[in-house]
Amino acid sequence: MIDPAFFKTADLRLMRAQYACLMATQSREVRLARRPQGEPGLDCFAFATVNLPDPGPGEVLVENLYMSVDPYMRGRMNEGKSYVPQFEIGKPLEGGAVGRVIASGDEKLPVGTFVLSMYGWREAFVAPAFHLQVINTSVAPPSAYLGILGVTGLTAWVGLFTIAKLKDGETVFISAGAGAVGSAACQFAKMHGCRVIASAGSEDKLIYLRDELKVDYAFNYRDGDARDHLRNAAPEGINVYFDNTQGLQLEAALQALVTYGRVAMCGGIAGYNVPVPGPRNLIQIVGKRLRLEGFIVSDHFKEMPVLLAEAIPALASGKLVNRETFVDGLDSAPGALLDLLHSGAGNIGKMVVRLSG
Amino acid sequence: MIDPAFFKTADLRLMRAQYACLMATQSREVRLARRPQGEPGLDCFAFATVNLPDPGPGEVLVENLYMSVDPYMRGRMNEGKSYVPQFEIGKPLEGGAVGRVIASGDEKLPVGTFVLSMYGWREAFVAPAFHLQVINTSVAPPSAYLGILGVTGLTAWVGLFTIAKLKDGETVFISAGAGAVGSAACQFAKMHGCRVIASAGSEDKLIYLRDELKVDYAFNYRDGDARDHLRNAAPEGINVYFDNTQGLQLEAALQALVTYGRVAMCGGIAGYNVPVPGPRNLIQIVGKRLRLEGFIVSDHFKEMPVLLAEAIPALASGKLVNRETFVDGLDSAPGALLDLLHSGAGNIGKMVVRLSG
Repeated sequence: MIDPAFFKTADLRLMRAQYACLMATQSREVRLARRPQGEPGLDCFAFATVNLPDPGPGEVLVENLYMSVDPYMRGRMNEGKSYVPQFEIGKPLEGGAVGRVIASGDEKLPVGTFVLSMYGWREAFVAPAFHLQVINTSVAPPSAYLGILGVTGLTAWVGLFTIAKLKDGETVFISAGAGAVGSAACQFAKMHGCRVIASAGSEDKLIYLRDELKVDYAFNYRDGDARDHLRNAAPEGINVYFDNTQGLQLEAALQALVTYGRVAMCGGIAGYNVPVPGPRNLIQIVGKRLRLEGFIVSDHFKEMPVLLAEAIPALASGKLVNRETFVDGLDSAPGALLDLLHSGAGNIGKMVVRLSG
Repeated sequence: MIDPAFFKTADLRLMRAQYACLMATQSREVRLARRPQGEPGLDCFAFATVNLPDPGPGEVLVENLYMSVDPYMRGRMNEGKSYVPQFEIGKPLEGGAVGRVIASGDEKLPVGTFVLSMYGWREAFVAPAFHLQVINTSVAPPSAYLGILGVTGLTAWVGLFTIAKLKDGETVFISAGAGAVGSAACQFAKMHGCRVIASAGSEDKLIYLRDELKVDYAFNYRDGDARDHLRNAAPEGINVYFDNTQGLQLEAALQALVTYGRVAMCGGIAGYNVPVPGPRNLIQIVGKRLRLEGFIVSDHFKEMPVLLAEAIPALASGKLVNRETFVDGLDSAPGALLDLLHSGAGNIGKMVVRLSG
């Protein structure tokens, strides 16, 4: 047994890589301890240490550097069928992670290669090379591939352009605009010449939306009535609503949408822990011929090259910002996820758990 | 002044037509007296008698035979902007009507021509010929053009095929299935080889759905939980929901829909008089990538020929049924509309007000 703390010093990383080839490596991981009823607590999570085998032919051993926590993970903690397989009790959680190959059984992924995977919530893992996606860290920092250059950015992109068919010059309202997906959506919409209205839940986030993301109108959804804000911000109505919250903001958006308006249904922070009543004005969908459409980013991975072609140069030139809120260490990961599920979540931009590096 | 009762006898109709050319004709009409707050009463309506001018060049005088009352008219009684212009206080209501030209200033519409118009809620009217659509009463009775061959049928057609993109062999749930639009939707879906689940609010309507419309599963939405009915009727889930009600049936449908399911949002009887809370499970739209889309039939009039090409022969051969519930006389029209807005509406199929003929 090797104490994982032994590997925490950056100087020892090469040694660890060599060592990993010689003997079983250990990894700490976070497992689902129990399914939450309503709001989850830290007792839903358990930590365990596992021995990893040497990578076999076609496999690699990866040390995770950063892992993602995302609101959608709350749904995977529930029982029952869902669009992604539920987390299983006693098994490690899953999620996006960026890591580095430290031992390789596949010549296409030599030691030192940076890869994106769904093997988050653990310090290291062994997986088939074809499960992993190589990322180019010479054009952007590794963690950006969990944010605006990754699934987060693609979620924003697909919601705006593929689902809601946002057109240049239109007006779009984005709830939870200072969150990871919201931040990306605000910026992509601005890059396409749209007028952007965004909501958030704290003064810090409003400043970020106004000063860094340059949105046209930002409001605190807890300060007054969202319907009034939308009326002030867009007296002629909004064309598109990018919905991260559901609840009262969806109700306000339905009222503000113009005829033939579109809603990209991306998430429902307002009701992740406790179901909230639906909008009382769904009848507006009929009269205004609105289209509400849900989507899951994993249906759209083939669109990633289109996003990267636009976003990588924009990020490099400073036109795009990939704001991140870091927490450190695997032990912090459960708390970071729970925080995201609150309306007063502390993160601005992408919440990233730094595991190493 | 001529007593309108003078013209009530069928034998006198020719005389009336001749008479109309000689002098101003009178028509009784129904006007909006006040806007309802919540559930409308008969005091929202007022009757008036007006003198009609002789038809000028390009105009015709039409005697209405049948007029339509439809749930969507409730929305037009409200104040404020809507997708169709609101009814105006002191002005006659509007709606579908079938009538016969009794005096003509346009050679394309000679006396005796049967026409469909939006000049309902009145016994007679003068209008430009180009406002009117000639109907062929040799292939179907005139009132069918208010029902399955008219806007009602087109609403069902567009909702199923254009909006929800129902495909042969799929399973569809239709709420208010025994109503005018619902009856048409049930039959069109069956003609396309679909499995049809329909709800209604009385035993008579369930018998009609089962015995006349041959739906696969009919249930009383007040008897038990719609979610249980849908689970029993379609354990594998439904592909499409044709929504005439919103409310709890929409909630049940969201639960029953399969991944990539579609909802044609046609109306919301459950909340026309009093707003109802929205479904508590809208989050399912995200996970199952559902699409909910509202529509207004007037956007789709160009699709009418496609409907008629299929529906006229099917009606003639008895494959389609155009069940109607008649009430007699303009005086009955307000009550007929109010009845439609109740969950226990008395009509089976299309509610038609017989004005003459």
